[in-house]
Formats: sequence, C-alpha cells, structure tokens
Amino acid sequence: MAAAGMDMTALNAILADVTAPIVKALALEVIDATAQQVTLRMPVTPTVVHAGGVVCGQALMAAADTAMILAVATSLDEFRPMTTVQLQTSFLKPVPKDCAEVQVVCTLLRRGKSLAFGEIALKTPDGTLAAHATTTYALL
Amino acid sequence: MAAAGMDMTALNAILADVTAPIVKALALEVIDATAQQVTLRMPVTPTVVHAGGVVCGQALMAAADTAMILAVATSLDEFRPMTTVQLQTSFLKPVPKDCAEVQVVCTLLRRGKSLAFGEIALKTPDGTLAAHATTTYALL
Amino acid sequence: MAAAGMDMTALNAILADVTAPIVKALALEVIDATAQQVTLRMPVTPTVVHAGGVVCGQALMAAADTAMILAVATSLDEFRPMTTVQLQTSFLKPVPKDCAEVQVVCTLLRRGKSLAFGEIALKTPDGTLAAHATTTYALL
Amino acid sequence: MAAAGMDMTALNAILADVTAPIVKALALEVIDATAQQVTLRMPVTPTVVHAGGVVCGQALMAAADTAMILAVATSLDEFRPMTTVQLQTSFLKPVPKDCAEVQVVCTLLRRGKSLAFGEIALKTPDGTLAAHATTTYALL
Repeated sequence: MAAAGMDMTALNAILADVTAPIVKALALEVIDATAQQVTLRMPVTPTVVHAGGVVCGQALMAAADTAMILAVATSLDEFRPMTTVQLQTSFLKPVPKDCAEVQVVCTLLRRGKSLAFGEIALKTPDGTLAAHATTTYALL
Repeated sequence: MAAAGMDMTALNAILADVTAPIVKALALEVIDATAQQVTLRMPVTPTVVHAGGVVCGQALMAAADTAMILAVATSLDEFRPMTTVQLQTSFLKPVPKDCAEVQVVCTLLRRGKSLAFGEIALKTPDGTLAAHATTTYALL
Repeated sequence: MAAAGMDMTALNAILADVTAPIVKALALEVIDATAQQVTLRMPVTPTVVHAGGVVCGQALMAAADTAMILAVATSLDEFRPMTTVQLQTSFLKPVPKDCAEVQVVCTLLRRGKSLAFGEIALKTPDGTLAAHATTTYALL
Repeated sequence: MAAAGMDMTALNAILADVTAPIVKALALEVIDATAQQVTLRMPVTPTVVHAGGVVCGQALMAAADTAMILAVATSLDEFRPMTTVQLQTSFLKPVPKDCAEVQVVCTLLRRGKSLAFGEIALKTPDGTLAAHATTTYALL
C-alpha cells in the first residue's frame, strides 16, 4: 500500500467546509497528520467549560468524533461522505479550565471497504489522558 | 421509595445554570419529566446541521449526555455534582435538516449510591429512532 | 412490510447449528420470538458462576451477543451470515448464583441493508435489570 | 509511585481461583505482565470456533474482560474484589480457526480509588488487530 495522507492545510480546509457551526465553535485545529493518525488541538475557552469549572464532556466527544472524520479522510487521501455508526467515550480525568488546550489524537485501527474503526486519545498538555474514545464509521 | 421528581421549570433552570455555552447553543428544552425519565427537545437549526444536510452526530451526543444530567437530578430531587463515566452512542438514521426537532428521551435504568445508568432514545417527531445512547454516571 | 418472524423451534435449531461449543455450554434456550424481538433464557448453573458467587459478566455478554444473532435472523425470516461489529454491555446489578435463570430480551432497533442495531436487556426472574447491552451487526 | 506488579505465576493462580468454569474453558494463560499491562494467550481450539469457521466474538469478549481483572490486580499488587461496570468491544477482523492463538494485551489507562479504565487489544500472531475493547471497572 502506497503511503497516503493529506497535509494539514487540506485537513483544516475540510474542518472549515464540512462541520456544523456548533462544531466550528470548538475552534479545532489540525496540528499533525500522517496516513494513519491525525492530531487536533482544542483550545480550552469559556465556551466549553461548564459550571463545575472543567471542560464539558460534550465538547470532548465532539472533538473525538471530528478527529475521526479527518483520520478517515487522510487515509483515503480525500474527503468522502461517511457517517458515524457508533462512538463510545470514557472520561478518565476532568480537564480544568486553566488548561491551555486538549490534544486529540485519532489513530485509525482499521479501514475496510465499508467500515472504518478508530481510537481517540484526548490529553492535556502534560500528557495526562483525560478521555478515550473508540468509534466505527461507515463509508457511504 | 417515595415518588420523586423535579418539575420542568426547575430542570430548565439546571440547564441554564450548569451547562457550558457550547451546550446552551443547542437550545435544549425540557418538555416532560417524571421520577425516572426526562424528555428534552432539541430544535433543528442551522447551528447543528453539517455540510451533508443532516444534524451532526456531535449535537446528538451532546443532547444525550445533557439529558442524563437532568434524569439523574430528577431522580435525586435536586442537582448534585456528577460526572459522565462513559457514553456510547449508536447512530441509526440521519436527521434531515427540515425536521423540526429531535426528541431526547432519557430513562434512568438504575441509580445506585455511586453510579447511575441511563439509556437515551433520540427520535424525530414521526417517532423514528435516529440515535440511541447508553451511559454511566458517577455521583460525586 | 409483511409480518416476518421465525418460530422458536427454528430459532433453537440455529442456536444448535451455528454457535461455538463455548456458547452451547451456556444452555441458552429461545422462549419467545416475534418479528422484532427474541427472548432467551440462560439457566444459572455452576458453569457460569465465578468465585464471588454471582454470574460472570462473560456469560452475560455471550448471551447478549447470541440473542442478537437470533433477532436478526427472525427479522430476515432466515439465518444469513452476519458478524458483530461492536457490542457494549453495562453491568447494573450482579445476578446471584441462587437465581434460577437470566432472561435475555433482544429488541431490534433497526435493520438496514448492511447494518442492524439491537438492544439487549438481561433480567432476573423478578424483573430486575442485571445488565444492558447495545450492539451493531453487519450483514454479509 | 513505586513499581508494582505481580508475577505471572501469581496471575495465573488468580485465573485458576476466581474465574467461572465457562471462562476456564478458554484455557487462557498469562504470558507477560508489567505494572500497567498484562498479556494473555488464548489458544484457538474447536471450543471457541463457530460454524462460520472463525473464533466466536463471545470468546474474544470473555478474554478481554478476564485480562482486565488481571491488569487491575497487578496494578494493585494483589487481587481485590471488583466488578465490570461496562465493556465495549469492536470486532475488526475475524480470527480464522487455523490461527494458533489470540494474544490479549490489556493496558490500564487509569486506576483511581473507585474506578479503573482499561483498553484491550486482541491480536493474531502476525500482529493483526482482530478486536479492540475498552472497559470500566469498579473496585469494591
């Protein structure tokens, strides 16, 4: 299999083109990409912090799901219509509001003809695993 | 066990008080509540629609998670700090953008001293199941 | 859509024909079936009880997965090759070893051309929910 | 934090002491262990192969769950009562019956006072990822 992979500019353009406004509000940015892995950063801003003073789980799940769209795209070398079949997230440690950002590392575990499987680690800058997700996507 | 349950005004106040701005942007509204079940409506607005012309999965997951907060609160007769341990969502059928709203019905499956389990059905107004989630919460 | 559904004799024959010996050791038996729902009983025998004196989670997950095979078959009116894409189980309450059986109720949430979604409730005879699973299957 | 970890003899003794007969039938064996990770082998025998000629998902899920018990034990330096809260498994690639064994690698993602989170990779000897699970355990 030839090496594939889109560059970060192309992946950030997908983010801008296909995601809903509610996802754009997360200000996600692609900061690294290979053929099997995409890393996003999500800045910790008041928009994603709930009354308990930590990043809300809803934002973490949304970032995980979005990272997988890009990981599938980079493995295909293009954006193709796809849909989330399921996404399971575990929340290991709260992300405090004074944390600068969350890093969202999506690794493609397998991409078949119709289904793709991925794993997403969400970490704070000190390397602590804050949340962990696994997901199945269907290629349309 | 005596019947518990908060009224809808109280539950909508929790929504307003504790959720992050990114969740408030979903414009969720409690429309029914009993001691074991809470129903929210999420209006389908351009904010939650992605380039494919359907409601984004990120919004559906966020609504499911939020419904569980309220279902736990109503079962306790008060809001108490809690955290999502895990949430698993399956996406069965896309919600088209011309759909008026999504109904989010969260049923508490079990509430123990430290853990609560819930199930969330997300339906379009014609009763079609669009997504289905299960979740575990920890009471702090 | 015409009413479909296989009878219990046919479903028990599938159990006998297609499952691995490790699953046959659970002594599962179909006790009810409609076009969208199949109920199995799993007797609580020493085979499935661990040192803590309760039914092991491994047996509960295995029963849930097996129930889904039959629920998909009955909805198709025949057994067709399929594969589990994912299965998520939550464990709500231990099943004590002196419980006679576990009832395993699998409801088909949606069956599309290539994917089927189901939900499985595992209950003790007094109606207590012991475990709850959701699953995605791919039709081959 | 001081290095912890039980040796393989001690972990195999836990397998023999605490698991249900249905799990013992899988003939699982600990082949590696560190403070945060345990590797088991599950031989591919006719006991775990279904009519489709591949290892049944039920056996893979059971192996994943069992690996986590040992990973939690080794991190605690002793076996302590615990219970599975949830386990989610994705099935990526069938394991053919002529495969010698499945390697089950469980990595502890986090162990708190009351909850532990783990991830389990199930691989064939050539390194192919056959299934992948994540799980939450409660320490009792």
